Amino acid sequence: MKAVRVHAYHEPPRIEEVPEPKVTGPHDVLVRLGGIGVCRTDLHILEGQWAAKSGVTLPYTLGHENAGWVEAVGSAVEEVQPGDPVILHPLVTCGLCDACRRGDDCHCERSRFPGIDTDGGYAELLLTGIRSVVKLGPSVEPAAVAPLADAGLTAYHAVRKAAPRLHPGTTAIVIGVGGLGHIALQCLPALTAARVIAVDRSPESLALAKELGAAEQVLADGKEVDRVLELTDGKGAHVVFDFVAEPGVPATGIAMTRRHGDYYVIGYGGSVEVPAIELISREVSVVGNLVGTFSDLVELMALAEAGVVALRTQRYPLASALDALADLDAGRIHGRAVLVP
Amino acid sequence: MKAVRVHAYHEPPRIEEVPEPKVTGPHDVLVRLGGIGVCRTDLHILEGQWAAKSGVTLPYTLGHENAGWVEAVGSAVEEVQPGDPVILHPLVTCGLCDACRRGDDCHCERSRFPGIDTDGGYAELLLTGIRSVVKLGPSVEPAAVAPLADAGLTAYHAVRKAAPRLHPGTTAIVIGVGGLGHIALQCLPALTAARVIAVDRSPESLALAKELGAAEQVLADGKEVDRVLELTDGKGAHVVFDFVAEPGVPATGIAMTRRHGDYYVIGYGGSVEVPAIELISREVSVVGNLVGTFSDLVELMALAEAGVVALRTQRYPLASALDALADLDAGRIHGRAVLVP
Amino acid sequence: MKAVRVHAYHEPPRIEEVPEPKVTGPHDVLVRLGGIGVCRTDLHILEGQWAAKSGVTLPYTLGHENAGWVEAVGSAVEEVQPGDPVILHPLVTCGLCDACRRGDDCHCERSRFPGIDTDGGYAELLLTGIRSVVKLGPSVEPAAVAPLADAGLTAYHAVRKAAPRLHPGTTAIVIGVGGLGHIALQCLPALTAARVIAVDRSPESLALAKELGAAEQVLADGKEVDRVLELTDGKGAHVVFDFVAEPGVPATGIAMTRRHGDYYVIGYGGSVEVPAIELISREVSVVGNLVGTFSDLVELMALAEAGVVALRTQRYPLASALDALADLDAGRIHGRAVLVP
Amino acid sequence: MKAVRVHAYHEPPRIEEVPEPKVTGPHDVLVRLGGIGVCRTDLHILEGQWAAKSGVTLPYTLGHENAGWVEAVGSAVEEVQPGDPVILHPLVTCGLCDACRRGDDCHCERSRFPGIDTDGGYAELLLTGIRSVVKLGPSVEPAAVAPLADAGLTAYHAVRKAAPRLHPGTTAIVIGVGGLGHIALQCLPALTAARVIAVDRSPESLALAKELGAAEQVLADGKEVDRVLELTDGKGAHVVFDFVAEPGVPATGIAMTRRHGDYYVIGYGGSVEVPAIELISREVSVVGNLVGTFSDLVELMALAEAGVVALRTQRYPLASALDALADLDAGRIHGRAVLVP
Repeated sequence: MKAVRVHAYHEPPRIEEVPEPKVTGPHDVLVRLGGIGVCRTDLHILEGQWAAKSGVTLPYTLGHENAGWVEAVGSAVEEVQPGDPVILHPLVTCGLCDACRRGDDCHCERSRFPGIDTDGGYAELLLTGIRSVVKLGPSVEPAAVAPLADAGLTAYHAVRKAAPRLHPGTTAIVIGVGGLGHIALQCLPALTAARVIAVDRSPESLALAKELGAAEQVLADGKEVDRVLELTDGKGAHVVFDFVAEPGVPATGIAMTRRHGDYYVIGYGGSVEVPAIELISREVSVVGNLVGTFSDLVELMALAEAGVVALRTQRYPLASALDALADLDAGRIHGRAVLVP
Repeated sequence: MKAVRVHAYHEPPRIEEVPEPKVTGPHDVLVRLGGIGVCRTDLHILEGQWAAKSGVTLPYTLGHENAGWVEAVGSAVEEVQPGDPVILHPLVTCGLCDACRRGDDCHCERSRFPGIDTDGGYAELLLTGIRSVVKLGPSVEPAAVAPLADAGLTAYHAVRKAAPRLHPGTTAIVIGVGGLGHIALQCLPALTAARVIAVDRSPESLALAKELGAAEQVLADGKEVDRVLELTDGKGAHVVFDFVAEPGVPATGIAMTRRHGDYYVIGYGGSVEVPAIELISREVSVVGNLVGTFSDLVELMALAEAGVVALRTQRYPLASALDALADLDAGRIHGRAVLVP
Repeated sequence: MKAVRVHAYHEPPRIEEVPEPKVTGPHDVLVRLGGIGVCRTDLHILEGQWAAKSGVTLPYTLGHENAGWVEAVGSAVEEVQPGDPVILHPLVTCGLCDACRRGDDCHCERSRFPGIDTDGGYAELLLTGIRSVVKLGPSVEPAAVAPLADAGLTAYHAVRKAAPRLHPGTTAIVIGVGGLGHIALQCLPALTAARVIAVDRSPESLALAKELGAAEQVLADGKEVDRVLELTDGKGAHVVFDFVAEPGVPATGIAMTRRHGDYYVIGYGGSVEVPAIELISREVSVVGNLVGTFSDLVELMALAEAGVVALRTQRYPLASALDALADLDAGRIHGRAVLVP
Repeated sequence: MKAVRVHAYHEPPRIEEVPEPKVTGPHDVLVRLGGIGVCRTDLHILEGQWAAKSGVTLPYTLGHENAGWVEAVGSAVEEVQPGDPVILHPLVTCGLCDACRRGDDCHCERSRFPGIDTDGGYAELLLTGIRSVVKLGPSVEPAAVAPLADAGLTAYHAVRKAAPRLHPGTTAIVIGVGGLGHIALQCLPALTAARVIAVDRSPESLALAKELGAAEQVLADGKEVDRVLELTDGKGAHVVFDFVAEPGVPATGIAMTRRHGDYYVIGYGGSVEVPAIELISREVSVVGNLVGTFSDLVELMALAEAGVVALRTQRYPLASALDALADLDAGRIHGRAVLVP
């Protein structure tokens, strides 16, 4: 089958013929891919940024946002059968460590991460295990949801975690209306009744935020903190979701956070640098966020099936994977690029 | 009556005669003081560190950790009567703002803070309102618990907030076995079954930690992170309480925090400086902590009455308030200084 | 002023002239009524059903769902001023007992209940205290929201309490699409992403449920349990809200509850009768529900201001109060009757 | 090997020779039994009470409270190795259903229950899977903890669930100081600071409750509700744990429950019969309780290893299993009978 594989860092990946994977273990699930999200992390991998962290042996296949149809299953698999449409949780987890036992499987102590530290989904087929497979409802096409497997799941996880604090009358801020932020803007009204303020440097992104229901849109032009304080009686928001977190942004985000409020870090690149006295005197928390759990993905798919969360995708054939990566690198993708084998 | 009052910053306070306060409003409560905690914040006030923040008009009376007996009550007060032993919540709160309505009164939008921004308890009598008064059980002497009103309440609040995460099998770390930390060490086994590791620079403090039930004691000699990781299978603790948070300590505390764990900041002086990627990849939260609520103080008094939490106090007559402050400044206080009028 | 007063049970109330109440205490708020909900409880009061329980001394004024405009305030009131539109929490609470301190003021140990055990709002003016006053936004007319003060608040409280269990992919059932149930149907999508099934004996009520967004409507014709099980893969719902709870209905509601699910009792009249073994083997809880807290009412008003929750009202002048009561008794009210002075 | 097997209901089980089970699957774990709890449920099985519910095919081996040492493991098992001391969760769960994914595995949709619906542990060896195996610390002997696998786990689960409500100053009641209740009495101070009141018909049981730290002991002589109300300022307890729940006891338990409190049903035999109006007007919940999760058992073992929870056991050789059952039936067991092969 065709697969898009990394042979060396700082070089384009190669589209080449590789042997088809086969079901061998009782819990194996072989998936024929229907859509694979193209993510900025894929560019970072090619630049070698993940080489040390992942420790992956080259060559290997990219692709960590995968959806498709079941092709074959191992002898012990009862939950899905060939033909079922599915989306794959980005991690392959053990099910036995303390984190997995408690439903916190995104902190599995023995997880693997296809597309990062083992073969991923830029291919025709992907071999995974039943622990990673979420069955899709009939109304959902795999290519339409593939990027929800990781980017969407991360946004959902943060919103889900914050939801108990966002009762009617509260305010939530979304900093960064991009791939993750625009999903968060859809998850917030689904899970909460908070008033939402979107903050972004781009007027186009703010227009999208408005379309997605954000009550207020604030341009990040250097005066965004003042503007947010004006919109919140000088108090700031109960929860601030920072999907950017590049240098300088965390300070802004914390300044927008209300007394006894939470600042959620989801983006990265920058640093949180705050005197202890500020966290204490206002009792503010800085909350780190990872990708979601398997159950989070099940819930997000319930929202997708109900039509409440929808991605904007730009599709490419698998053979055009390099074009998709180049378009992403050049800022030519609007919404999210998806490879369709 | 006698009162210890600040007339100018960078000068010793004066012990002088002032008029006795009187009950005038229906919710007023006049308290004859039985014990007043002497706190490092009192030294900071005298050094002028709080001048801008509090905006207090000089002269005024120090003292924010107050306990005693009810002397007289306003016409609408039914909860206590003259002679009742009481401890006072450090804030005078409105009862009507959103925070007060939700039981989160330490974030009252209109609170005053006796001893900080209005007359406090370094005196024979203190006028307060019924909203600040916690009635003590018969087994508790005001002078024995006065410092629990603020220092103890802050430690209790942090432990109470973290307790739901500290199920049996988890580990909690207490950094700094001082005035607050030694209360936290007593609250932890009262509220949780977590294994407790104490970290301090002083062997004497670690000996106290051991006496108070800490399963492990780690000397903060520069290798404390390694030692904590050894004691936790390389994983760190589920919750780290940092009662020091002086420069450099937050980095240490975060490094001791387990994946998906919480680092609680209670001390101050230093800064939290951490790359967003570290908070995200390990899903760690940095949790700010303020003093506790009125209900927290009620709960802490239940523990004091049960003998589960006990302070070590060093007592001085009110007339020796300046000696107490000097001893505190010179590090000659073991436990907590308390003025007894 | 005019007021509708009960002089004897089993007799119509009298519309008569009474002295206007005056502000006397510092926390008093005098409200000029703009709308008063007419509730089935008012009929029960007239039938004497509440006589023993309330212990009220006759004559007194009916009316426990009150909204209007501030007419005058006591000297200590800063939160509202004359002219402000307001809705009144049904209880007058103390603010000082343990329940009030913890934000659970609907369990205040010293509450009074205007319209039940003291003069209520079937009048031109009502004297209350600032603790009961919620300021309305400019988009909300008092007469349009008055019945939310009690009926709506009870429905909101139950939904709010259950919301953390109703993540996407779960199912909630609303038994009884009447005055409370039709508010619950509006609160559920505001606070959760649960799929909602409405159950009622009346096809008209089910049509209203459909209009309000219930995914499924089930006629309570004796086969409703089977039908619900069909709609839920034989498992039942995660949360069942029983707004009827007349004899026989609780058994039905528990049978519709999923393993490890919750059955919420809001209506009354019937009994819960269930073998312990059934609660244990399926780990089902039976959750009692009272009216909501002050903060619940603030939140519900945020939903009303956002247009997310809207009542259907049928208005009567105050002078036609007896007609309104008669129409309610005769089943001629569609939506909720409101008196407009 | 020797095993104690049911061949027919209403007949004593037979101790006979059966083939040793063998590891065949990759996740299998073969356990050499070190202790097996003898439970009243075993008597009920022999009386045929579970025949219809379990649908088990006779003959089969009794025993659902099992602990011992690992004898052999399947190829995929990494968590334990031969020689490790272990205790077994009573259920064999799938790890893949929604409940298992969320850490709520005691509601697994495909669980089996050794000793109830498949061969159990009244034998020398038991074949189970790695999902059921909790490794014990070196300080814990299997025979000393075996009954914690089910009886203890059920008590722990109820206390763990209620713990967030049992802050200092609250009161918990334990009705029934028997096999489960005496474990609950040990778990309560480990997890909470609640004041505990024990209620039992037997003075000997109340003496044990006192020894285990219950602050108050109330004889269930028909006046126990009055006595509890006296001890709680007429209010009742925040949480009532009913380990008896035989006919009449639930009504008593609910009457002991405070306004906005919770009545936990753990025993069975009787029925909950309560008018909806009572649950509503006091906002009381009736909470059903099943056995605990795998993680609950891990936590309970942490308490056992710390010496905080300890069972009283009366040991019998496996060959004397029928004597143990007869002694249990005749009320001759003090503490808990354990078979030691």
